[in-house]
Amino acid sequence: MRKTIIFALTITIFAVSPLIPKDEGIDNIKKEISIVLNDSEKGWNSGNLEQYMVCYHKSEKMRFAGNGNFNFGWENTLKRYQKSYPDKKAMGMLSFSDVDITIISKDAALVFGRWTLKYPGKERTGLYTLLLRKFPEGWRIVHDHSSSAK
Amino acid sequence: MRKTIIFALTITIFAVSPLIPKDEGIDNIKKEISIVLNDSEKGWNSGNLEQYMVCYHKSEKMRFAGNGNFNFGWENTLKRYQKSYPDKKAMGMLSFSDVDITIISKDAALVFGRWTLKYPGKERTGLYTLLLRKFPEGWRIVHDHSSSAK
Repeated sequence: MRKTIIFALTITIFAVSPLIPKDEGIDNIKKEISIVLNDSEKGWNSGNLEQYMVCYHKSEKMRFAGNGNFNFGWENTLKRYQKSYPDKKAMGMLSFSDVDITIISKDAALVFGRWTLKYPGKERTGLYTLLLRKFPEGWRIVHDHSSSAK
Repeated sequence: MRKTIIFALTITIFAVSPLIPKDEGIDNIKKEISIVLNDSEKGWNSGNLEQYMVCYHKSEKMRFAGNGNFNFGWENTLKRYQKSYPDKKAMGMLSFSDVDITIISKDAALVFGRWTLKYPGKERTGLYTLLLRKFPEGWRIVHDHSSSAK
């Protein structure tokens, strides 16, 4: 008996690359980001602005926003920091608190928290919202919006 | 001639849901987000805080950060707005400028821009960073960090 052979082409669509990594992946990403931000904090507290700046994407597109103004560029941001914080005394001691990391995708995360700069007898504080992206060199800030408490 | 019929099961894996939509998709998302934010602006300028608040995710987890403090919750945020802006005169005229929408994935976008409130003879201004997510009801703000120029 001859039969007409019908090849059933079964197209199975797999949902690949879920937008949000699973728990283990999320924990790993949070650890990676925390290490980058902690290294940055250490850089600041040792008076090394270039080490502090490692957390920022070394790009002219990197955006840094303050209370009412914003600028672009890694080099530009470093120069502005160097002007505002010319020495270790001016830099004070930096700490981050209330840190909340939201993983948006495998290569994007929003980090929100409080920054505090302590000086002898006084302190300054405020909030930050960071967008980090994953680059070959690691997680880097592409957008920083930092505000100061009045 | 009899043939052994071999059904070829071809499993074709399609890469679905790319993390970043293509240009057309990006343009559409930007339009959708712009409409939400423009409607919000119109709500403010007609003195209707509840219409303004439509752009925010109606959730207790929605985070609203100012220069130095932050709070959670849609209802809470509305109450705080009602207290700070009790009438149309206090609300002034709101406008957004320098708006930059970054599409992170099909359901996440960062929006950065400047807000300005104009009153007779004076104005207040500052910056905002918003994280919007796509919900069944549309794009909504889940995180707002708004700062005021000093």
